[in-house]
Amino acid sequence: MDRYDVIIVGGGVIGSSVAFQLSKRGRKVLLLDQGPLGKKASSAAAGMLGAHTELNVDSPLYSFALSSKQLFSDLAVELKGLSGIDIEYVDKGMYKVATTEEEALTYQKLALEPAYQQQQIKWLDGNEVRKCEPALSTFIKGAMWIPKDGHVSAPALSIALASAAASFGADIKEYTQTASFIVEKGEAVGVMTNTGPVRSLHIIVTSGAWSERLLKESGLQLDTYPVKGECFSVKTHQPLIKGTIFSEGCYLVPKKGGRLIIGATEQPHSFSEQVSVQGISSLLERTKKILPSIEQAHWEKTWAGIRPQTQDGLPFIGEHPQIKNLLVATGHYRNGILLAPATGLLVADLVDKKTVRPEWKEAFRLDRNHVYARSAFS
Amino acid sequence: MDRYDVIIVGGGVIGSSVAFQLSKRGRKVLLLDQGPLGKKASSAAAGMLGAHTELNVDSPLYSFALSSKQLFSDLAVELKGLSGIDIEYVDKGMYKVATTEEEALTYQKLALEPAYQQQQIKWLDGNEVRKCEPALSTFIKGAMWIPKDGHVSAPALSIALASAAASFGADIKEYTQTASFIVEKGEAVGVMTNTGPVRSLHIIVTSGAWSERLLKESGLQLDTYPVKGECFSVKTHQPLIKGTIFSEGCYLVPKKGGRLIIGATEQPHSFSEQVSVQGISSLLERTKKILPSIEQAHWEKTWAGIRPQTQDGLPFIGEHPQIKNLLVATGHYRNGILLAPATGLLVADLVDKKTVRPEWKEAFRLDRNHVYARSAFS
Amino acid sequence: MDRYDVIIVGGGVIGSSVAFQLSKRGRKVLLLDQGPLGKKASSAAAGMLGAHTELNVDSPLYSFALSSKQLFSDLAVELKGLSGIDIEYVDKGMYKVATTEEEALTYQKLALEPAYQQQQIKWLDGNEVRKCEPALSTFIKGAMWIPKDGHVSAPALSIALASAAASFGADIKEYTQTASFIVEKGEAVGVMTNTGPVRSLHIIVTSGAWSERLLKESGLQLDTYPVKGECFSVKTHQPLIKGTIFSEGCYLVPKKGGRLIIGATEQPHSFSEQVSVQGISSLLERTKKILPSIEQAHWEKTWAGIRPQTQDGLPFIGEHPQIKNLLVATGHYRNGILLAPATGLLVADLVDKKTVRPEWKEAFRLDRNHVYARSAFS
Amino acid sequence: MDRYDVIIVGGGVIGSSVAFQLSKRGRKVLLLDQGPLGKKASSAAAGMLGAHTELNVDSPLYSFALSSKQLFSDLAVELKGLSGIDIEYVDKGMYKVATTEEEALTYQKLALEPAYQQQQIKWLDGNEVRKCEPALSTFIKGAMWIPKDGHVSAPALSIALASAAASFGADIKEYTQTASFIVEKGEAVGVMTNTGPVRSLHIIVTSGAWSERLLKESGLQLDTYPVKGECFSVKTHQPLIKGTIFSEGCYLVPKKGGRLIIGATEQPHSFSEQVSVQGISSLLERTKKILPSIEQAHWEKTWAGIRPQTQDGLPFIGEHPQIKNLLVATGHYRNGILLAPATGLLVADLVDKKTVRPEWKEAFRLDRNHVYARSAFS
Repeated sequence: MDRYDVIIVGGGVIGSSVAFQLSKRGRKVLLLDQGPLGKKASSAAAGMLGAHTELNVDSPLYSFALSSKQLFSDLAVELKGLSGIDIEYVDKGMYKVATTEEEALTYQKLALEPAYQQQQIKWLDGNEVRKCEPALSTFIKGAMWIPKDGHVSAPALSIALASAAASFGADIKEYTQTASFIVEKGEAVGVMTNTGPVRSLHIIVTSGAWSERLLKESGLQLDTYPVKGECFSVKTHQPLIKGTIFSEGCYLVPKKGGRLIIGATEQPHSFSEQVSVQGISSLLERTKKILPSIEQAHWEKTWAGIRPQTQDGLPFIGEHPQIKNLLVATGHYRNGILLAPATGLLVADLVDKKTVRPEWKEAFRLDRNHVYARSAFS
Repeated sequence: MDRYDVIIVGGGVIGSSVAFQLSKRGRKVLLLDQGPLGKKASSAAAGMLGAHTELNVDSPLYSFALSSKQLFSDLAVELKGLSGIDIEYVDKGMYKVATTEEEALTYQKLALEPAYQQQQIKWLDGNEVRKCEPALSTFIKGAMWIPKDGHVSAPALSIALASAAASFGADIKEYTQTASFIVEKGEAVGVMTNTGPVRSLHIIVTSGAWSERLLKESGLQLDTYPVKGECFSVKTHQPLIKGTIFSEGCYLVPKKGGRLIIGATEQPHSFSEQVSVQGISSLLERTKKILPSIEQAHWEKTWAGIRPQTQDGLPFIGEHPQIKNLLVATGHYRNGILLAPATGLLVADLVDKKTVRPEWKEAFRLDRNHVYARSAFS
Repeated sequence: MDRYDVIIVGGGVIGSSVAFQLSKRGRKVLLLDQGPLGKKASSAAAGMLGAHTELNVDSPLYSFALSSKQLFSDLAVELKGLSGIDIEYVDKGMYKVATTEEEALTYQKLALEPAYQQQQIKWLDGNEVRKCEPALSTFIKGAMWIPKDGHVSAPALSIALASAAASFGADIKEYTQTASFIVEKGEAVGVMTNTGPVRSLHIIVTSGAWSERLLKESGLQLDTYPVKGECFSVKTHQPLIKGTIFSEGCYLVPKKGGRLIIGATEQPHSFSEQVSVQGISSLLERTKKILPSIEQAHWEKTWAGIRPQTQDGLPFIGEHPQIKNLLVATGHYRNGILLAPATGLLVADLVDKKTVRPEWKEAFRLDRNHVYARSAFS
Repeated sequence: MDRYDVIIVGGGVIGSSVAFQLSKRGRKVLLLDQGPLGKKASSAAAGMLGAHTELNVDSPLYSFALSSKQLFSDLAVELKGLSGIDIEYVDKGMYKVATTEEEALTYQKLALEPAYQQQQIKWLDGNEVRKCEPALSTFIKGAMWIPKDGHVSAPALSIALASAAASFGADIKEYTQTASFIVEKGEAVGVMTNTGPVRSLHIIVTSGAWSERLLKESGLQLDTYPVKGECFSVKTHQPLIKGTIFSEGCYLVPKKGGRLIIGATEQPHSFSEQVSVQGISSLLERTKKILPSIEQAHWEKTWAGIRPQTQDGLPFIGEHPQIKNLLVATGHYRNGILLAPATGLLVADLVDKKTVRPEWKEAFRLDRNHVYARSAFS
């Protein structure tokens, strides 16, 4: 039987980031996935890196997200070198647009707060926004301009991390379902897969919305739930917008070669990867109000992904409360791409028994009972 | 050099129907296509067989369409036997729905005309329609019920005809572009292709919207123009409707396995096979009004096809005015599927110098100068 | 909470056949699948209906297979009527070809046995075979000609059965993973899915190679293992062969429209749906020896499916030994398409407490300990 | 009617490179394609940049190829900046492997020639090659090691050039067929397309193998012919090889993420984009001899492209002999990717009436009658 230092169960962007960090540190890693790598939520994401659009600055998730975002610039270079894959990192800024007077007032005030000022965030009124992005309609009352936010290609990031892990010697086994853990004297020592047992010193569960079922086997009831997100994409020869547009209800992410991704609906408690007509219809109506010239674009395609959400909106990253050497990293909801680099580092540090930032450890631990107000999150 | 009895230039549904008829009559046929067979307008069509929804009963096209429709039932059996392909012929009826009081009055009166009475067509008010098709909304004021109309699978019909032609010995050459005709003493005796010349006794041009360019080489200016049509399809486990729904602006065609095709926009003077956001958006809005439960369906895909239209709305089927043994069949606009069987027979009869119905010959001839009022056609 | 008469866990060809039979008998059925319906082994199969090529006449599986095959002719008509889907049933005969003198002797003798004679099976020497199928090479020493065997479209059969079940009122939920059974007082009364619990009077597990993991939850260790099978397909305008060719190492199944499926490798203990270069290479080499003109065909595509095999080569069809109202139908290996109709009937009869053929019940029961010699099966 | 400075007919890698250079120089450019951009030979290429594997150092094409190759490094950075697209430029070296003693002797001698020495090319015996690339078999007798050669992503290069042209204001019209030129007083002043006439000061024909038909319209018979090339690709998690392997009969190009492209057959006088079983079979057999471990890789896909070849193996780049302001750039055969940057510059210089290297102008002019020995080219 093969023996590994670490087995990672789930080859999405979180598992691949963990695999990358641990392989780089010299660990013998096995990355398992029940299907092909990176084909679930990780390839469905639009790849926005939006710490300020998505998160409350008072949450420990905000500092975690900021630290993760700062890793992307170097990571892009490193992954290109190791895997040949360009993660398409773009930091041309993001507009969190207001479409009601109420939103306008809120964002205008928010932009003045110290945490936002520190990030050079500023309020632009409708005309100022349209001066920068002339294709936007007067439906836009103004926007918070976040100059440092941007996006990556989510599928490219996920595959690049796995490929870079492989370049450090990680083994990858696709189409391998993990049914349960092998536990001896309270310690995880391996996993039972549909092609037999594999042993290792550490096990990390990074199966996104599918983590829950596996962890139930180990006696742990993680309180997560799936949220389906639907997207569509269009193409033009000349890009319609330069920056990313984030609004309540939909966002628009301009990709290379004139591609524009429009996302994403939120359908809680669904594992279905089918795209509903309702979802596309509502995104389309919303987008036409914001960016009328989208009507001239060419339709490309639609897709959906299933994101793991938690009751308090914070991910679960930490050790299993009862079983030693068994760790979990899931519940990243729609910030999995943004949080992947920091999560990879955090899990690697936990495996290595390094000191980690206590507020993160505390906030993300699996058996927490404090609850951050859900309403703090968009 | 190979010698054929007939070379057919264009392997869409019209060319394949001609190839089928002539091969069946023992002719040595070569069917050429500049790409793969049946992949342009013929595979983009929803496959409606709607003589009464599309055509004016006073037009010679109406009798031609009726005669073509009557061929489908036997043709379905014959093609299944020869090619193994099921053309998915369905004759469960069609509703030409009225969405305004004005349309309602028009259709109600129309339904009483002798030509319509002969086809058991009758007027149903809104409630009667919804009794048969409970998923339709009150946006529908009533409908002409056309019990014998139906639909086929357009891609299956096109491929089945070509495959049946092959079963009778027809040769098929894909990815072969025809650049010009070889004419000797005023007679067409072959074609120049991008892989060399091929000789034959008869040449038939059936290249749809692409016929015009080739015919210009022969000195003939056919007055046709391309009309792009965009469609999308959705799926449900239980069919939302049983009959075909035809309305001004869009039609809904229920296919096997819970698939529903929604078509089609009309964008004149475009050869682009790209689907515009505007096109899909307008179809979607219209469909939601007619069939609100479509919102619960799953999005499948979008596509577009380029249909050849003529100034008077009648196809061109007949002999080249200057060059002997050169025939043309194009300009079927959005009735190519419906008219393919009758067109195949008519062209085969012209090749065989058989007597054909004089009003069709006259109406469809290439050098006609009478013009049927365009307004007669939806 | 919804309540059903029967929940079927697994929407492949077996589950869909069971759903069809029970819905038709008026049961309220829920068909669950962890992904889209019919996309695993059921759509990967070449669809051969080869009772005589695959099975030993002394096995109870032979009589079961024969009874199943006799159902196809009527089933094809019934499913076309209910779902609009043509299952592409073809009964033009099969050649079990000998490529060594030893095989030739074996088959020649076998053809004389009463069970084979009863099916009009006869031995043809190499020249006789090539008279019927001129494209076969002299590598073929002869063949057992099985005039009544044939094939269907495996994906079409699977979807048609589910669609026909839906036409009788069955509910279908895709992307729904079943984690465990709800058992009360030794009786199965529902299932726990990833979107919540569902209750029913009967539960049928038809999850193919994925059944084992679920049944382990119920305390039952079914001794099955996955066997990957890889295929490829090619196309020609004129079919290369008319009948199905079965040889040790590969088979060739002629489909509609000039398509030819070549299958299938056997890779035990793999759940991977990836196609290996080795697999395609070995099939290709073998096929070139049998049918040299395949070199002129066009390459279409490759794919793989995971089939559930058992230690004794017989399927498991029957009741759970400990839990009432919980039934299983899996382990059909590479005969799932052939056996689907009879399995649907047998399971429906078991649910209905009808009398079933005792030798089948006995041979396929879950807790059997007799073992049919594996070597009896090809 | 729109008026342009330059109309470019054909949006493959050559046309897009010309569009990029001229847009960058401030010209108002229209780039036309009869289908979607970059989907013919340009996306079928493996993207090898192999001046030394493909070309005779005495040919003017060699210096042209060298000059083109030197442009890639900067071009990759420029295109990434303008379009966001990474062209995946890799310069990790190429092995021109010898598989016979005769080849070994030839290459060993060749490596000593001054032109090769200047490029740091050196001979490696079989063991030395396998030390660098352990996966290669003993079938390899040795190799010319060309340290500076490499490859790009052909589809990415083609789209990036067009996208960068658009960023400088070029208009792009897809699905637009050019039927003929508008010529006034011996000067080209526009083109007739299937959606009407367009005027411009210069016209450049860059339609690859499809240029010939269009140029015939202008009275010019370019002596080119199509050569189909078929490829397939496989994947592994760990790359099997680091450098590019070039041998007579096939080449292996390692791409990002463990992808390996194997190309390409040579089928002259075919425009068919269908992949033959024979082509794949021969590539597969050859590759298995060179790289036996390819059997463990996963099959990805197959494809084909049509390359324009000329009688003397040199491209046609220059002015139309009779019509002013009409230029042509085609006939790049299997070096279109390598030669695209230099061709873009050369054509732009010709349009701008700049001085160009006389030996290139002479060698590539359209009405040349000197013929370089075809045997000089592999």
